[in-house]
Amino acid sequence: MEKSSEKFSRNQRVVGITKILTESPNRVVNLNTFTEIFNAAKSTVSEDVVIVRETLEKLYMGKVETVSGAAGGIKFTIDMSKYEKDLFIQELCDVFREKDRIMLGDFLYVTDLMFNPDIISKAGKILAAMFRDIEVNYIVTIETKGIPLAYEVAKNLGVQLVTVRNRTRVTEGASVNVNYLSGTNKRIQTMSLSRKAMKKNSKCLFIDDFMRGGGTAKGIDELLQEFDSELVGCGVLVDNNFDAKEKIIKNYVSLIEYNGISEDGTAIVKPSEKYIDKI
Amino acid sequence: MEKSSEKFSRNQRVVGITKILTESPNRVVNLNTFTEIFNAAKSTVSEDVVIVRETLEKLYMGKVETVSGAAGGIKFTIDMSKYEKDLFIQELCDVFREKDRIMLGDFLYVTDLMFNPDIISKAGKILAAMFRDIEVNYIVTIETKGIPLAYEVAKNLGVQLVTVRNRTRVTEGASVNVNYLSGTNKRIQTMSLSRKAMKKNSKCLFIDDFMRGGGTAKGIDELLQEFDSELVGCGVLVDNNFDAKEKIIKNYVSLIEYNGISEDGTAIVKPSEKYIDKI
Repeated sequence: MEKSSEKFSRNQRVVGITKILTESPNRVVNLNTFTEIFNAAKSTVSEDVVIVRETLEKLYMGKVETVSGAAGGIKFTIDMSKYEKDLFIQELCDVFREKDRIMLGDFLYVTDLMFNPDIISKAGKILAAMFRDIEVNYIVTIETKGIPLAYEVAKNLGVQLVTVRNRTRVTEGASVNVNYLSGTNKRIQTMSLSRKAMKKNSKCLFIDDFMRGGGTAKGIDELLQEFDSELVGCGVLVDNNFDAKEKIIKNYVSLIEYNGISEDGTAIVKPSEKYIDKI
Repeated sequence: MEKSSEKFSRNQRVVGITKILTESPNRVVNLNTFTEIFNAAKSTVSEDVVIVRETLEKLYMGKVETVSGAAGGIKFTIDMSKYEKDLFIQELCDVFREKDRIMLGDFLYVTDLMFNPDIISKAGKILAAMFRDIEVNYIVTIETKGIPLAYEVAKNLGVQLVTVRNRTRVTEGASVNVNYLSGTNKRIQTMSLSRKAMKKNSKCLFIDDFMRGGGTAKGIDELLQEFDSELVGCGVLVDNNFDAKEKIIKNYVSLIEYNGISEDGTAIVKPSEKYIDKI
């Protein structure tokens, strides 16, 4: 942002500060950024930040913290009211119940939802808020349908996204490959990740669209061990309890539960028991 | 958002309004949303919106319009100053020039950048701003590395993302398949899209990470014809002029240009000539 020679009113400064802070969640913004943009004293800008903080907290729109030290500044972290979260999850269940989602072979077509920015941006915020207080270095996902959701979680937690591929790519140099049993088609598949994708000794969160038996999450856990890294949590949009009631992975959260198709031809879904307000 | 019985000051209202408007670009927010949240009269909230509008425009942070009619309200559209765009594109070139990105076989490793929320959220905003005044119904991309960028463009333009797959999936019902010549490995590949993914007579924008010869974009064009839909524009992060100077598709924009690897072992990149401030 350019330095300014103009003057701004308090109303104007809090608008600009809100925009800057909320579009970079979990990132420390130096107070000098604001004094330069608004051509204002540190004390003035500090008072502005207090107004932004109090308002966002009052409206359950997020938290604003002061980070001290040399790399210090102001940090915004996401939040959403329980009312808003519950409403979204109910609405998501309704969308899953739309009749024309049932495909030949009793498959549920939800690909559009996984690439719908309105849905994925809210779901990503809710998942990210659950892991807000855990130290995480990377969000990990596996191609393809979980990528937007994982990207949103990464953005909201202010960390890098790492996408595991389903085969080795020549353009990615040396890679680590792990075999795993996929729930979708019950066969051995390969997951592959470039050696360059991740630093050693990292803490990772696995985010995906669906959880069936947990075979993919288990594979990711093994893959991360090859990077001397650790799976510290797992979050999915949909817990598929119809195709797999028992999971080989226990420590995960989900927003909704899928329990098959009813006699009248609609998906049986409900807010997940694995949905918890905060970990 | 819940109705409120509390009172808010103007400073507080403009903070809340900024947060709500800027997190849903290109979406109309009814004025009643604000009167309910802030327990304030329509005239009061209208004055607040004027402050938000004037401030965001002054800071090149976006435009706020009033949409009239039954479904009317307030709409935020993204913007970024030329200074900020140019700075970002220069920084992106610097990141591409990092020495350890050159892999065996002279491949350039940039996968991490395509999944980096800091980079992709800005690149997505710049691309979306270029197409802000064109009517677009869908953003279309092809798996895998362009998905986060395409998702950001879709989110900033307030439309659905459609991701073309590289093979048919049983879970997606009837699909349309098109063969195309991929630039990456110079062989015939298949792209596949579910019949359910798109309504007929749609206007689509293709967004991808790299443009080589344009074979993929040409394939997307053909695929869209099968949906009686139209490719109205094309945007990529990197224009690869090293592997393919001549493109079979002419109408596209890009942010940076890649021209091979220099003798000292760094990528030769520069801001793209196809980067234009606005279409």
